[in-house]
Amino acid sequence: MYLKNGTILLKEPPSILSFASVVGKKEGEGPLSSYFDIVEYDTKFGEKTWEKAESKMQQIASQTALDKANLKKKDIDIMFAGDLLNQCIGSGYSARELNIPFYGLYGACSTMAESLSLASIFVSFNIVNRALALTSSHFCSAERQFRQPLEYGGQRTPTAQWTATGSGAIIVEKNCGAPYVKAVTIGKITDLGIKDISNMGAAMAPSAYNTLKSFFEDTNSKPNDYDLILTGDLGVVGSDLLIQLLLKDNIDISAVHNDCGKMLYNLKEQQVNAGGSGCGCGASVLCSLILKQIKDGILKNVLFLGTGALMSTTSTQQGESIPAIAHLVHISNDNVHIERR
Amino acid sequence: MYLKNGTILLKEPPSILSFASVVGKKEGEGPLSSYFDIVEYDTKFGEKTWEKAESKMQQIASQTALDKANLKKKDIDIMFAGDLLNQCIGSGYSARELNIPFYGLYGACSTMAESLSLASIFVSFNIVNRALALTSSHFCSAERQFRQPLEYGGQRTPTAQWTATGSGAIIVEKNCGAPYVKAVTIGKITDLGIKDISNMGAAMAPSAYNTLKSFFEDTNSKPNDYDLILTGDLGVVGSDLLIQLLLKDNIDISAVHNDCGKMLYNLKEQQVNAGGSGCGCGASVLCSLILKQIKDGILKNVLFLGTGALMSTTSTQQGESIPAIAHLVHISNDNVHIERR
Repeated sequence: MYLKNGTILLKEPPSILSFASVVGKKEGEGPLSSYFDIVEYDTKFGEKTWEKAESKMQQIASQTALDKANLKKKDIDIMFAGDLLNQCIGSGYSARELNIPFYGLYGACSTMAESLSLASIFVSFNIVNRALALTSSHFCSAERQFRQPLEYGGQRTPTAQWTATGSGAIIVEKNCGAPYVKAVTIGKITDLGIKDISNMGAAMAPSAYNTLKSFFEDTNSKPNDYDLILTGDLGVVGSDLLIQLLLKDNIDISAVHNDCGKMLYNLKEQQVNAGGSGCGCGASVLCSLILKQIKDGILKNVLFLGTGALMSTTSTQQGESIPAIAHLVHISNDNVHIERR
Repeated sequence: MYLKNGTILLKEPPSILSFASVVGKKEGEGPLSSYFDIVEYDTKFGEKTWEKAESKMQQIASQTALDKANLKKKDIDIMFAGDLLNQCIGSGYSARELNIPFYGLYGACSTMAESLSLASIFVSFNIVNRALALTSSHFCSAERQFRQPLEYGGQRTPTAQWTATGSGAIIVEKNCGAPYVKAVTIGKITDLGIKDISNMGAAMAPSAYNTLKSFFEDTNSKPNDYDLILTGDLGVVGSDLLIQLLLKDNIDISAVHNDCGKMLYNLKEQQVNAGGSGCGCGASVLCSLILKQIKDGILKNVLFLGTGALMSTTSTQQGESIPAIAHLVHISNDNVHIERR
């Protein structure tokens, strides 16, 4: 059922059958360490380049999710994947190895939410039986593509975020128990004119605000109906802005809000400034602690908002501001829709 | 209905309500000139850079498709769009202006088929009422991103293709008459080890072969069941390879095959070597002559195969081969499914 602000209610909520996370050394030293399936201490994952390492990470995450469900690659009908690299090569080359029918996505750091949304829609509406959602980011490949050569060792501003080395994979199927995906809200591009590429949180917060407002209006629900409203990677700066923006509309999410960028690292000790970012940040946090807690019933209802900043180095050099988007996924421990109207 | 090789039969075939094409000067001087909605002689489309021009082209194509259907932007429930530029900025910035719920895609030159597939699936399965599929490419933005500065004036090999300056937009809705989208086949990555980025046709032909074979097997149909099998942009070299590959399996498409890359230009006079390429090539050919002829009943059944090469300059520099993908869309003048089993 399509609602007017971009929300699609999944009347037959599909299950998250299996999920897996793979992260690098720094992420493995953070507070969520024990929840990841695999922590790899070689930044190149046995490959010759960081870009190939990123693709390898996606393959390991997918294979781990398949193994946990006792499935083979051929059991997956479709995969949705994307990443931050130019021409999404992290995903293109992993899809080559996986050999699964593949729709490539580009949603920057919103990709875990975008891919999970599409996988859930395809399964819920019986378009396919089983779908894979997949994404990744790698600190080293992102840093040299978007910022500076790593060897340069440039200083980072206090508002800058740290691109996570991580990948998350989710397999969606019907009738496999909790967690369930009950609804998604498709984001619109929001751009309030922020041009500082060292302040992604500020650029993305308004998009999270818009999508969250759309979801609340469409479903006639409120923050306290959820145990957790989890943004993808707004970091410290963006999270504060999101809370302030919503307070102006008398919506207070402060009691239930957290952000993957704030959760992935010990912010001060690990020197990540405003927190984590990158497709792999939201993906690895969701595909470890969060989905486990929903599955176990510790969390009952979670809104996961993947937030993405869709600029490129070229658009920035041409003076353009940062267009941001946020896609929402409502993940629940039960599959019962509450009628609120 | 999902079939085993990646084909999704759309039991309730949605209609292509409206379509529009916008191209540049060179394309406007080609054989399809009179079929395009808009031919723009300013390569920058009134903008300051070619990247902004590409985004503008998408906006013009979308607005033209909306105008032809007497619709407003707010009447569209969802848009699927992507392009060749790093971080798909052509689409990101056009989605900002369109202000429609947006799932970003990356499928390189297969994007018209990928976006039309997703739009058709979403409408056919009643997920949304009305969806927009959109893509573009621009010779100048692609050339300097993937090859050399335009000012360099490098020579082109005989197998090289010419990235089209063009955009296509399609609006999909139910019960609006022909053309209808009856089925889609989701491609898998195919990579036979081609590394020559001046020979995209050779890299992409095997992916078109695989997807076409999958479709024929899934639907139990054969080449002569279709008036036209139209590949996205294999060009002269790739088209020949596709025909040869299929002949080895005793499948002869030569009587019904054509290629957008061969149709868009007068190959010799316009000096485009092996033909056109780019997301805008397949998009502008489909969204002009082809959809018009299907609508008018001149063509009854067309298989449109968008073919994409998903490498980046980084993956090429790292010695990787070119991963290619082909997505298929079966477009018809009627909405009756023939039972062939």
